[in-house]
Amino acid sequence: MLQLNRIPTTPPDELSRKDAEKATKAYAKKIGELHYRLLAQKKYNLLVIFQGMDASGKDGAVKNVFRYCTHNGIRVYSFKKPTDEEFDHDFLWRVHKQVPRKGEIVIFNRSQYEDILIQWVHGWIDDPKREERMTAINNFESLLAQDNQTIILKFYLHLSKDEQKTQLIQRIEDPTKRWKHNDNDWNEREHWDKYMEAYEYILNHSHIPWHITPVDKRWYRDYLVAKTLAEKLENLDLTLPFEADDGFASKLTQLQ
Amino acid sequence: MLQLNRIPTTPPDELSRKDAEKATKAYAKKIGELHYRLLAQKKYNLLVIFQGMDASGKDGAVKNVFRYCTHNGIRVYSFKKPTDEEFDHDFLWRVHKQVPRKGEIVIFNRSQYEDILIQWVHGWIDDPKREERMTAINNFESLLAQDNQTIILKFYLHLSKDEQKTQLIQRIEDPTKRWKHNDNDWNEREHWDKYMEAYEYILNHSHIPWHITPVDKRWYRDYLVAKTLAEKLENLDLTLPFEADDGFASKLTQLQ
Repeated sequence: MLQLNRIPTTPPDELSRKDAEKATKAYAKKIGELHYRLLAQKKYNLLVIFQGMDASGKDGAVKNVFRYCTHNGIRVYSFKKPTDEEFDHDFLWRVHKQVPRKGEIVIFNRSQYEDILIQWVHGWIDDPKREERMTAINNFESLLAQDNQTIILKFYLHLSKDEQKTQLIQRIEDPTKRWKHNDNDWNEREHWDKYMEAYEYILNHSHIPWHITPVDKRWYRDYLVAKTLAEKLENLDLTLPFEADDGFASKLTQLQ
Repeated sequence: MLQLNRIPTTPPDELSRKDAEKATKAYAKKIGELHYRLLAQKKYNLLVIFQGMDASGKDGAVKNVFRYCTHNGIRVYSFKKPTDEEFDHDFLWRVHKQVPRKGEIVIFNRSQYEDILIQWVHGWIDDPKREERMTAINNFESLLAQDNQTIILKFYLHLSKDEQKTQLIQRIEDPTKRWKHNDNDWNEREHWDKYMEAYEYILNHSHIPWHITPVDKRWYRDYLVAKTLAEKLENLDLTLPFEADDGFASKLTQLQ
């Protein structure tokens, strides 16, 4: 069984920041090119899930990794507290509405996993309910992958408790970050150990595996996420429709 | 009354491509910064509409102008042929669902105006129906502007018939562009003059004015769109919440 306190939240010594940033840029450019092909081909689609504690850098990952992707065919959905209407349905109802269509990239900032994280940490659901929901999530993710060729990439942004404090303090001290401050983040921080336990449960019970991403250094986060995504996309057969059709040019004489 | 054939589709001689591209980059960076503030402040929101003939470069404008904006809080919606469900409602029903929420930028690739363009050109609606819909669109845009502080920027991408042909031929000859080819674009091209008449009607009857953007040179398109957007955003009071609150730092002693 995986234990989070045995996994470092910092980069390995052998990778320099400079080398990582150079590689990240190349991966991000590759993602931009392959997103174009994904969109044109309309065969696959991509669901990228970011989960992590407050201030683990979900927004920053979105910003940096997809920076060479056009805005067409890519969409970020940030899950907040469910509305009354959403609470009156099963927990996957609002999630299902947001999944990618063919050709599209959808990025979840938080996700269906919140319903077995925050809810379990605060005791709003018990262990059997958590297990039932975990099974439901596994079934749901299988459905997307099997029935609509959805590629699901899940990143757990692995942050240390100390680095979270540094980040939360920045949100108070840096005037341009104050809008992100939320008193409640400091309350949730009190439940740190219980959250780690909740994440461990998820990481150990997901059928589609998670990429555990050390994020104390943001440049390492960007490097790992970009690398994982670029390599995944490179392994798909993202051919463009009619690209290899030598007879296509004959259309011109027909049409003119 | 505005007449499209009196308006050039090419850039003015006095602007060089090099100078324009340099300025576009600076404007695009400014848009990226101000988008962050728009999103944080959640006071305004922005609806950008691109309309133009096939191959007028709507996708390219989206790609280049917003290239420094993160993917969070910005969304492109491309209007296609309405579904059966959409046809069973008033023409603005599907449009209304896609408008921006506070803080958000939404880009329409085609829009509500298609319902008085293609439909009128092909005689599916008559002049009185067109007038009725034009009034409905003006009322709809007023509603967004008045009731949700939506900034609406509309760009008519002004393309010459010759340049369209060059672009459509490229979609056949360039293997990486073939996926964009559609035989029907060549059929619609037969109705060029009627389309110009339809656009002139819109440009002359919209309450919120259009930015007529010459697009035969794509670099000039990007320059004009980026300039218009950057200047519009710069004129808003996009302050960040709590940015100027000198007492904010006292939160730290409370929370720790």
